[in-house]
Amino acid sequence: MSEPTKDLQPAIITIFGITGDLAKRYLLPSLYMLANNGLLPLNTKIVGVTRSGATVEEILNKIKISVESDGKTKCQESTMQWFKESLSIVSMDIIDNADYIKLKDKLDSIEDKTGICLLRVFYLAIPSAMFAPVVDKLGEQGLNKGCQHGTHESRLLIEKPFGYDLQSAKELIVRLQKSFTEEQIYRIDHYLAKETVQNILAFRFNNPIFTETFNSKHISHIMITATESIGIENRVTFYEQMGAMRDFIQSHLLQLVALTTMDEPKNMDAKSIHQQKEIILNSILPPHADNMGVETVRGQYNTYRKEVGDIKSQTETYAAIKLSINNDRWRDVPVFIRTGKALAEKVNEITIIYQKPNKPKHKNILVIRIQPNEGIVLDLTIKKPGFKDELQHVQMDFCYQQKLSDVQYTAYERVLADTLRGDKTLFVTSQEVLASWRITSPIIEAWANNRSALTFYDNGSWGPAAADELVEGAGSSWQTDILNICPTNFKK
Amino acid sequence: MSEPTKDLQPAIITIFGITGDLAKRYLLPSLYMLANNGLLPLNTKIVGVTRSGATVEEILNKIKISVESDGKTKCQESTMQWFKESLSIVSMDIIDNADYIKLKDKLDSIEDKTGICLLRVFYLAIPSAMFAPVVDKLGEQGLNKGCQHGTHESRLLIEKPFGYDLQSAKELIVRLQKSFTEEQIYRIDHYLAKETVQNILAFRFNNPIFTETFNSKHISHIMITATESIGIENRVTFYEQMGAMRDFIQSHLLQLVALTTMDEPKNMDAKSIHQQKEIILNSILPPHADNMGVETVRGQYNTYRKEVGDIKSQTETYAAIKLSINNDRWRDVPVFIRTGKALAEKVNEITIIYQKPNKPKHKNILVIRIQPNEGIVLDLTIKKPGFKDELQHVQMDFCYQQKLSDVQYTAYERVLADTLRGDKTLFVTSQEVLASWRITSPIIEAWANNRSALTFYDNGSWGPAAADELVEGAGSSWQTDILNICPTNFKK
Repeated sequence: MSEPTKDLQPAIITIFGITGDLAKRYLLPSLYMLANNGLLPLNTKIVGVTRSGATVEEILNKIKISVESDGKTKCQESTMQWFKESLSIVSMDIIDNADYIKLKDKLDSIEDKTGICLLRVFYLAIPSAMFAPVVDKLGEQGLNKGCQHGTHESRLLIEKPFGYDLQSAKELIVRLQKSFTEEQIYRIDHYLAKETVQNILAFRFNNPIFTETFNSKHISHIMITATESIGIENRVTFYEQMGAMRDFIQSHLLQLVALTTMDEPKNMDAKSIHQQKEIILNSILPPHADNMGVETVRGQYNTYRKEVGDIKSQTETYAAIKLSINNDRWRDVPVFIRTGKALAEKVNEITIIYQKPNKPKHKNILVIRIQPNEGIVLDLTIKKPGFKDELQHVQMDFCYQQKLSDVQYTAYERVLADTLRGDKTLFVTSQEVLASWRITSPIIEAWANNRSALTFYDNGSWGPAAADELVEGAGSSWQTDILNICPTNFKK
Repeated sequence: MSEPTKDLQPAIITIFGITGDLAKRYLLPSLYMLANNGLLPLNTKIVGVTRSGATVEEILNKIKISVESDGKTKCQESTMQWFKESLSIVSMDIIDNADYIKLKDKLDSIEDKTGICLLRVFYLAIPSAMFAPVVDKLGEQGLNKGCQHGTHESRLLIEKPFGYDLQSAKELIVRLQKSFTEEQIYRIDHYLAKETVQNILAFRFNNPIFTETFNSKHISHIMITATESIGIENRVTFYEQMGAMRDFIQSHLLQLVALTTMDEPKNMDAKSIHQQKEIILNSILPPHADNMGVETVRGQYNTYRKEVGDIKSQTETYAAIKLSINNDRWRDVPVFIRTGKALAEKVNEITIIYQKPNKPKHKNILVIRIQPNEGIVLDLTIKKPGFKDELQHVQMDFCYQQKLSDVQYTAYERVLADTLRGDKTLFVTSQEVLASWRITSPIIEAWANNRSALTFYDNGSWGPAAADELVEGAGSSWQTDILNICPTNFKK
């Protein structure tokens, strides 16, 4: 274990749901890695909240299994020892007011021992339906106010879904803001913490050739793909409530659209970036009500109904939509998005098509590949070597592989570290949440009213044919023929 | 040997200087390869002109040695047999009028045997001082007119130097045009026949991201490098007359400038391309007379004077100059050129700097590498992976290596093949020659008047420091740190 950092305010991180799946798979291993690499503030304490009354040893055991699950990493004795000393369990019923007094006493007593202000961070790793009641009760006990021995305000960490539609999102925002200010709330979109996603802005605004050409004068359309090869993996209740639109498009993919199309912020600080993201999200338009049938595609993989035990399920496991942006930079540049489960490959990429209307055959395709085989590729046309004056396509590429393997950290490590240092750049504001629901709700509503037929697709395919027709309208194709970029073990 | 092509007019190729160095090293092996690959017209005949009276067997032997000099290729029996049957030697004194009658009789008799029009091609692989008298005599004997049994006009192939300065180039053009029209004259710049040079226009005009950004709005300056590691290799008389300016800049490098900066031709035919090349060459300006001292650099490698046996030689083996272009597209975008011998590495590349005046730190460097390790590289800025928001440079590249090894042919094969099919795209027009002398003559003159001091540099260095200062004025550096592109065996 490296020396803990002394530059940061010491903190107590309280995890609601410490015995749950999210904590086991992501939060606890991330805390271990941060501690191990000296990235947690000195004197950091961790409090696990659970009804089941797990012991510290049980939690430590879960950490060990999780960290060592790659078959290569070995937990360090000193870090495990630190964890053992820093972790406390509070056994409580999170809907019982009295138990919050118990929690407060515990946090106060830990703080009393150190004698200085400990920044209180509450991570709600629990179902989103519980966010409002838990936050209410944290507020009632004054746990929103922060430490006893100083002035630091508490911070609240929550993860999507932020509401179920525009109305419920509004209500949730108002409800949470009764106890925690917007400034105190850290809404996680772990996609934003991926290196390759963070790079989008760095790439766009530090490379003049791209900075100056990201607009309708040069670009004909944009396509964003986030496909998964796995199905819903037993998350029946969750997925039946969500569907692809709520699960991926309302959150991750609209964030990617915003990063890809937003104007350059005045500075690269959180406030300036969020300002531009909010502006662009407010400029994005869903298809017109009359076009929902042709400009949106919803699909379901063939084995889904059997899997969820509902032969009438209308939940989409695949969605493809055409968006437009109502500003000068992007007018008439359609943005196509597709996402789905049980598809041929796991691919997440942003594809930018450089093309002038008067020369449709002259094209450059820029791909920012988020995963797998992270990299940036530009499809070029060159002279085909030989006597004949023929042309051919080749790819110019940069592959992240080497760079990323030098510095490995997970999105959740970044999320936790940024929360501790109070950097909100990679979190989502309430205005962004609302703007995303404003874009997606009309589509979800149209689908509920059956204004775009649910189509079925084979597991392991590339999804419904209608999604191909959607982009063919722009003279394009999802299969860019350059999918096999930065190849390691990946094959299209 | 492959079947000869039937699509082309049968030809007699007459080589003046068939026992010379150029014929031995380039022309004869190229003819062998073209014949071997079926790229010569059916019934092609070759006539070698020489004073020394070499035998066909001696020439065949030279071909064999030259073709097999790579240690891998083996001459094919059938091709050598074809060569033996198709090659005749005419022993003549090229300044003797009477001998041209002998030559004409020989060509006529070969044509009589086939009974059809044979396109007459004259390749003057002789010192340029002999071009005018030889062409006069070809004209006097009517050999400019072409075949007896048809209407095809003769073609004349010559290679630089096309004159010694603007005045002598004008005179040479007028003199040759007494016998051969501009249409009949094929001025070789073998650089233009290199695949990577041919690709410049294909690359520029088929990739909208570059087509649309090759202008002063996006690009701050351009640098063209053509360095050699070898010295003058015993070509004392030739080089003492030429120097780097005449040998490389007036010819090859100004052609590269033209290809890099010319407007898009209406079509990709020879006429349209030459039209645009002539327009851009006429827009290029040498440094102002007052600035010759700071905007031109002339150097000489340290062992040069000893090598040529003249301790006072003023011949430059290195030249670096700053040019400007007087048109809307390129105003205020300097073009820096450097070339030299006995330098650290053999490198030939075009470097384009994308940079806005208000953001000098935001840069993209595009390198079109002509040799070695042919490729196209774009230097990018990305986020450095890790918790800190730092930036780093990486390269996105396309390497020609594989593509080029699939289709191997030499520049001279291309030159000969294009002459036979009458494609003048890769040749140089008289107007281009004159424009290039108009640009270079004022510099040569200023140097003759010592308005820029001759500086000396170590053999194996990167040349005079003054050349570095020349580009530092534009906030730049010749050493782009991305020299090690498409690495195979190349190291900066």
